[in-house]
Amino acid sequence: MLPVTDPSLIPFFDPRGVVVIGASTNPAKLGHGIAQNLVNSGYQGAIHFVNPRGGRLFERLIHTEPEQVPDPVDLAVILVPPDAVPATLEACETRGIRAAIIASGGFGETGLEGAALEETCLAIAHRNNMRLMGPNCIGLLDTHLPLDTTFLPPPGPPAGDIAFISHSGAICAAIIDWARGQGFGFSRLVSLGNQIDVTETDVLAPVAADPHTRVVTLYLEAISDGRRFVELARQVSRHKPLLALKVGRTAAGRQAAASHTGALAGQEAAFDAALRRAGVLRAETAEQLFDWARALAWCPIPNADMRVAVLTNAGGPGVMAADAVETNGLSLAALNAATMGRLRELLPPAASVANPVDMLASASPQQYAAGLRLLLDDEGVDGVIVILPPPPMYTAGSVARQLIPLIQTADKPVVVALMGHGLVQEGLAFLRAVHIPTYTFPEAAVSALAALAQHAAFLSTEQIQPHALPGLDVGRARQILRDAADSTGGWLPQDKLAAMLNAYGITTPPSRVVRSAEEAAAAARAIGFPVALKVVSPTITHKTDIGGVTLNLADEAAVTTAYHELLARAKALRPEAHIAGLEVQQMVSEGQEVIAGVTRDPQFGPLLMFGSGGVEVEGLQDVAFALAPLTANEARQLVRETWAGRKLQGYRSIPPADETAVIDILLRLGQLAEDLPQLAEIEINPLIVSRRGAVAVDARAHHLQYNAPEFA
Amino acid sequence: MLPVTDPSLIPFFDPRGVVVIGASTNPAKLGHGIAQNLVNSGYQGAIHFVNPRGGRLFERLIHTEPEQVPDPVDLAVILVPPDAVPATLEACETRGIRAAIIASGGFGETGLEGAALEETCLAIAHRNNMRLMGPNCIGLLDTHLPLDTTFLPPPGPPAGDIAFISHSGAICAAIIDWARGQGFGFSRLVSLGNQIDVTETDVLAPVAADPHTRVVTLYLEAISDGRRFVELARQVSRHKPLLALKVGRTAAGRQAAASHTGALAGQEAAFDAALRRAGVLRAETAEQLFDWARALAWCPIPNADMRVAVLTNAGGPGVMAADAVETNGLSLAALNAATMGRLRELLPPAASVANPVDMLASASPQQYAAGLRLLLDDEGVDGVIVILPPPPMYTAGSVARQLIPLIQTADKPVVVALMGHGLVQEGLAFLRAVHIPTYTFPEAAVSALAALAQHAAFLSTEQIQPHALPGLDVGRARQILRDAADSTGGWLPQDKLAAMLNAYGITTPPSRVVRSAEEAAAAARAIGFPVALKVVSPTITHKTDIGGVTLNLADEAAVTTAYHELLARAKALRPEAHIAGLEVQQMVSEGQEVIAGVTRDPQFGPLLMFGSGGVEVEGLQDVAFALAPLTANEARQLVRETWAGRKLQGYRSIPPADETAVIDILLRLGQLAEDLPQLAEIEINPLIVSRRGAVAVDARAHHLQYNAPEFA
Repeated sequence: MLPVTDPSLIPFFDPRGVVVIGASTNPAKLGHGIAQNLVNSGYQGAIHFVNPRGGRLFERLIHTEPEQVPDPVDLAVILVPPDAVPATLEACETRGIRAAIIASGGFGETGLEGAALEETCLAIAHRNNMRLMGPNCIGLLDTHLPLDTTFLPPPGPPAGDIAFISHSGAICAAIIDWARGQGFGFSRLVSLGNQIDVTETDVLAPVAADPHTRVVTLYLEAISDGRRFVELARQVSRHKPLLALKVGRTAAGRQAAASHTGALAGQEAAFDAALRRAGVLRAETAEQLFDWARALAWCPIPNADMRVAVLTNAGGPGVMAADAVETNGLSLAALNAATMGRLRELLPPAASVANPVDMLASASPQQYAAGLRLLLDDEGVDGVIVILPPPPMYTAGSVARQLIPLIQTADKPVVVALMGHGLVQEGLAFLRAVHIPTYTFPEAAVSALAALAQHAAFLSTEQIQPHALPGLDVGRARQILRDAADSTGGWLPQDKLAAMLNAYGITTPPSRVVRSAEEAAAAARAIGFPVALKVVSPTITHKTDIGGVTLNLADEAAVTTAYHELLARAKALRPEAHIAGLEVQQMVSEGQEVIAGVTRDPQFGPLLMFGSGGVEVEGLQDVAFALAPLTANEARQLVRETWAGRKLQGYRSIPPADETAVIDILLRLGQLAEDLPQLAEIEINPLIVSRRGAVAVDARAHHLQYNAPEFA
Repeated sequence: MLPVTDPSLIPFFDPRGVVVIGASTNPAKLGHGIAQNLVNSGYQGAIHFVNPRGGRLFERLIHTEPEQVPDPVDLAVILVPPDAVPATLEACETRGIRAAIIASGGFGETGLEGAALEETCLAIAHRNNMRLMGPNCIGLLDTHLPLDTTFLPPPGPPAGDIAFISHSGAICAAIIDWARGQGFGFSRLVSLGNQIDVTETDVLAPVAADPHTRVVTLYLEAISDGRRFVELARQVSRHKPLLALKVGRTAAGRQAAASHTGALAGQEAAFDAALRRAGVLRAETAEQLFDWARALAWCPIPNADMRVAVLTNAGGPGVMAADAVETNGLSLAALNAATMGRLRELLPPAASVANPVDMLASASPQQYAAGLRLLLDDEGVDGVIVILPPPPMYTAGSVARQLIPLIQTADKPVVVALMGHGLVQEGLAFLRAVHIPTYTFPEAAVSALAALAQHAAFLSTEQIQPHALPGLDVGRARQILRDAADSTGGWLPQDKLAAMLNAYGITTPPSRVVRSAEEAAAAARAIGFPVALKVVSPTITHKTDIGGVTLNLADEAAVTTAYHELLARAKALRPEAHIAGLEVQQMVSEGQEVIAGVTRDPQFGPLLMFGSGGVEVEGLQDVAFALAPLTANEARQLVRETWAGRKLQGYRSIPPADETAVIDILLRLGQLAEDLPQLAEIEINPLIVSRRGAVAVDARAHHLQYNAPEFA
């Protein structure tokens, strides 16, 4: 089921009456544009204008005060100087209007004064249960209701079934104009501006609820409440595809973080993981966003493992398409013998009847249609790209006309690449009119098929189930953290960390922290040889960087020697560091070394990382991320995205290792981060995975300030 | 200097007279189309028609035989049934015509009979010193000469400065039609068809020599003579940029090869390396090919390390551009304080004067121009992208008009993103008319700037100099290979391979092949402990897969035990394998392990590989490729493309290693492959790189058949 729309937002999307406050009789003013667009949009509710100067506009009286506006009126569109906005909001409240679009600019985007003005507006809204869209936005557009509260120069966009939610008004304006040339229309457009109140997350439900909307596209600069967005978007995208262009990769920069997980994660990895979790397809460019949107709005959803057939009248474009099929992670369909036999009968001897099917330049409209029918009937084909360079003997229009009924009734997606301009205009017009996705070049067409497959893959994944993990001692873990945490936040001592991991069922090797060579030798004897010796210091987080780890100590003498050496080296290289002691740890030598960690994204919460560990983790970049909590299947996917994970199956001389144990640990780490909000990040490196089980040989964890609410 | 055009090709590009053989009075025939296009093209030389039926066409007599055609006539365009082509070629020869475009299809592309026909045609051409273009092509088009030998439906492309060489006629037809809508024209187009004689490499020089051509674009499906192409293209691209779209990544598949180098290389890596060496920019899509071509044809060449300034009237599109700058490996310019101060004076207080410069929606044409001037005057700016969403208060045309004189006189590249359709048409028309590159979205515009930077980087690289490598004993290496090679080709025995590497100045550890445990112990004693023991077998190329290597044997007892174990394991796991003995090798334990190899691409010759070695080399995919021979600088670039190479500088606890030794070994391997054509591939894995020097600890080499000419 689609998520329910917050009732307070209904006045934006289905108002019984709209008042334009700041409506102007001067055609050069934006307040005139809003009034004009609203009237011309064909909006069926009541339209009111307010301007202190009064007068008449578009055959209507201009009221001088909001109070004078008669019923019905649910929505105010405000375009007055920024200083006048608070009083206008108060007046709206008095009049009983609970929803306002503030189109005026001059707020937070201009500096501190503007930001203060936003605070004032928001306070008024909160006090009066009002909802605000904007400021600094171009408002709302619904081509079916219809309703247009923007001041954009006409014409507005044609009606269509693609919705667009945008953080940028300029992008809205550009996309509307551009889409007109691309021959597709919009259902709803929402420009959110500075979103002091209503956000991209708030409008997801009402925009998706629109029966005319088949797909929702988003232009995002940031997300205001990451976890709520993911939750809602995931509900929506099970019913209507969501596609996003997320910009601002450079602006935010990477978070400063001392752990590998933190350094590698950054905002982009979190965003990627969040959109993936939410089932939102992430486009690379604006053009791709709408290339994909048309296919998702107009085509049946195929198999996730999509086998593509290519139908063309020339070899070159067919090869282009075949390349794109591979580049996009799809596969070329292997046509069955019957299909190829019938194609052979249909086509001249020199034609190629294997996929890509090259019907040659002489291909007639009838051959195109017959060829497409054969491909659609082949059970090994999940989708088709039809390629049409200007056919030398026929018009592209005549080919398009033959194809349309077939494509319209097919239960498999068909996209068309019309390669040209003037010579394919007629064909383009025919196909666009009946909502068949067209592209100029095969690459874009195939990329749209891949987006369909990606959406199909999302639909086929299981819903998130709270995964039962036996043996979690939440109370103990919380106690350990509380006891260990000092008042400023910092790194958790090794022994406490080990205890915390153990409380969550994650195995660590037997170990003991010692403060003398004698203690070390005794501890090693107790643990059993061979052992490893490691410096324990809250300020030395990357021990190997200073040679602070010695492995494979086989006897007491070796332990004693190593103890003194290690201590001397640590003191020489880090004279300032407080050395709490040395850790004697049982050697775990057999197994594959991986890294598993979880960091806390400020937007999206716990973010799991898995991949190739060791000191080279940043250099190799063989890591993948996913939002916690995961299902076991999702954890397996995460693991297998990396070479480190695929290698767990065994590879050449490397024996297989316990992937299930790794998955289990990832789930436990995710749960730990969910349960202990004060845990900023935790990372196991290396996690040594043997044939049975996995052991956290080294780890570090960073916690937040002690005095935060969770510790109260 | 541009390469010299083969005189035999001049008749194609500057004929004094052209005869269309197969010219038809029937407008439905392609032979009519050719005649019509030739006449309408405005070609100034003599135009003749031949058709056995005779008659008149376009106010000219149709001759019934080629022999009747009067002077001048240098070029024949043939469109007769394929069977009639050989006789037609003979007739051309008799008439003294030495250049022919065979437009007819029905040759090699249709099967064996057609291929035989091609052989016949080629034999006639060779016998008579004729040059042939095609068959199965659409011929030649020159908008400046002018000349049009194609049968494409009119109108032809507008005149321009971009040349296009294509293996596909359909792509030509599509691109011509599409380009018309994109507002750019062509200088020369060459459709090569089955290229039984004249190839893409042959036409490079004459196409680049055209003074109207500023950039040459290529659509490639394969390259017929890779090494000659690279050599010629590298000459051309120093003077005129070359851009290619290479398709067919899936078609050829990967070469079957037993070594890592071979398996990882495949055709794509060789192509990439070849195009890079040749200075050819490789586009991902057809659209990108021409997006880049416009910038390269019309913009000044910037610094290779390009610092980009963004000028916009809205935040969103500015962020889009900033993202694209990072994605494309460029950097955002840091504006100097004076520039920002002047922007501050120019713009309203809410404008952003740091890069991206957001002038706000109110930006006037004058502000756009003044802003651009300030950015162009800033010494920290190497190129500018101007973004123009439909400006709410002004027309895009008025902005474009103000920008044009500035952009035309700038010595830095400026590209413009005109975001929209109807509202930006006028601006688009103004900019296109004066050859300023325009794009719809910022991403494509920035990608074009990146192509400029990439070309600049190529221009700044040194020319290939034969690199002097001391201590190469070519004669000895050749002798070793000749002695070792058996008659069928195969793997080189370990000891021979070591000797060959030594002959090329590549160090291998002291080692000896032994056939008994006693011999092994004695050898180990002689070499010095610790040693490694390895199975030696011509059929076991991946020794570690069967546990065929034991490391770190510290004394004679260990060697003896390991000898028996190793032999038993090898016999158990590979009972069919011939085991020639065991190799006792001095242990090399200190250093970083990398892989260095060279394989032989059938097209482009020796292809070097460098990267992370070990058994996981395919899994990690941390490898890079380059065509041999390299300069030392190019070898350094190759090394630093990989993490394995960057790590040689030292990383955290990993000490630095001898990068210079690695570079030297890569150069030596390249030279070895150049010098010994019978060496199919050679790979050192691991090459252990210490603080000083690098040692080839394990290697394998595959050689071709013994009886080939090089061994005669």
